[in-house]
Amino acid sequence: MTVMHPFDAAIDLTHIAPGQTLGRTDPQWANMVGPFGGITAATLLRAIEHHPDRQGQPLAMTVNFLAPLSDGEFVIRTRTPRTNRTNQHWLAELSQRDTTMTTASAVFARRRDAWSTTEVCPPVVLNPDDVAPGLIAESLPWVHHYDMRFVTGPMPTNEQEAQASSTTTLWIRHRQHRPLDFAALTALCDVFYPRVYLRLGQFVPAGTISLTVYVHADEHDLAVTGDGFVLATARAQRFSHGYFDQTAQIWNRAGTLLATTHQIVYYKT
Amino acid sequence: MTVMHPFDAAIDLTHIAPGQTLGRTDPQWANMVGPFGGITAATLLRAIEHHPDRQGQPLAMTVNFLAPLSDGEFVIRTRTPRTNRTNQHWLAELSQRDTTMTTASAVFARRRDAWSTTEVCPPVVLNPDDVAPGLIAESLPWVHHYDMRFVTGPMPTNEQEAQASSTTTLWIRHRQHRPLDFAALTALCDVFYPRVYLRLGQFVPAGTISLTVYVHADEHDLAVTGDGFVLATARAQRFSHGYFDQTAQIWNRAGTLLATTHQIVYYKT
Repeated sequence: MTVMHPFDAAIDLTHIAPGQTLGRTDPQWANMVGPFGGITAATLLRAIEHHPDRQGQPLAMTVNFLAPLSDGEFVIRTRTPRTNRTNQHWLAELSQRDTTMTTASAVFARRRDAWSTTEVCPPVVLNPDDVAPGLIAESLPWVHHYDMRFVTGPMPTNEQEAQASSTTTLWIRHRQHRPLDFAALTALCDVFYPRVYLRLGQFVPAGTISLTVYVHADEHDLAVTGDGFVLATARAQRFSHGYFDQTAQIWNRAGTLLATTHQIVYYKT
Repeated sequence: MTVMHPFDAAIDLTHIAPGQTLGRTDPQWANMVGPFGGITAATLLRAIEHHPDRQGQPLAMTVNFLAPLSDGEFVIRTRTPRTNRTNQHWLAELSQRDTTMTTASAVFARRRDAWSTTEVCPPVVLNPDDVAPGLIAESLPWVHHYDMRFVTGPMPTNEQEAQASSTTTLWIRHRQHRPLDFAALTALCDVFYPRVYLRLGQFVPAGTISLTVYVHADEHDLAVTGDGFVLATARAQRFSHGYFDQTAQIWNRAGTLLATTHQIVYYKT
């Protein structure tokens, strides 16, 4: 008997009809309200990855969180309104009891030989072995699946720890080692706690409304990354009357930019 | 008789059924192939703005360009799978002859009193009056609707003008003055020519696949901006085997960050 990795168990889906799969929330990956958004995003990506019509690899995905999932089963419906020569467009909808809870659009693509370069640089940081492990909040089940090493901007515990910059940078990998794939990379794009906590030094109600992931990594980049730590860095640009944006990068230890990712988050103060 | 502003004429829609509107491509706003993507994005936003069920103002929008529009009519279908207390989720699909050409998701929201701040700074630049007008390419109809003043990173005309940075910063406003609204701000998010041109100093086939806009401006910010110049700045992070990302900011002259915007673009070399 093979025991599935907890990440794979959480995003596991059962085919029920053409373009329809059945999944189930996993209490191990629960967040404050509903599951960790990264797991939901990864599950939607997986539903498309496993569709028999899928061509190419993930390039872009936007996930809109309409409402927190309830514990239990959900159905994901996927369809591909357009297949071009080198890219394919997907739409997905996750529902519970016929109510839409999450929607997504995605682009899958074939990469080609082309002039390539990375223009931005990774933050200069200590090695993960030289950084103490840290957690976002002990009480959140999902955070225990990751080994997090905060280089800057750990979760503040009081107002004295409020920072003038919303930047958090951390090394992260699955606590139970697992090679990085596109689904796991997608989940990593949502591992940052809300930037408003860091600016205010306190917890306030906040949640991601829409998440966009741009995948720069190809399968070679993922293979090089393996199950090693990746460096994740995020910051906000503007906090405006109840909504802020977050922009982030995910790097591997070889200095390859695996993904850039953005989200818009609501908050109350 | 009132003559419509060319921007309003281009995004004008006719109600044909609940959640269905009819539009028509405008040759004045043509790009290389099909219309300027910013006009298509603005038209999709307008279809939602004018829907009788719409609540609140635009907060986030992702537009996926499946295929270039043909000249002529199109139909936009909009639906709102979820209305929450302070935000509302929308899905839109633009089709021609029953073929989906463009899809979009959007979030509209009501802004609230909340702690607010802008963490990033605008680029330090000359005033627009001190910068010479420039164009992206004379042959593109849509560019003539804007007054563009390139501060850095104008369109290169040969390989000697290739740059080590993909950053373009420009002042821009409608050539025929028009107060900024959410639709016009959305269009401005797509005014940058492909970053790969600037790195290579040459034109190569390239096009936006997916565009995301986060609106930070409220109606007060728009009113302050009026019909004045805004400062738009964009750069790429990674060019990877045929696809690069672009991340950008739109500021007004008062130093207010109106929008942050991201896109993924295909290119061939």
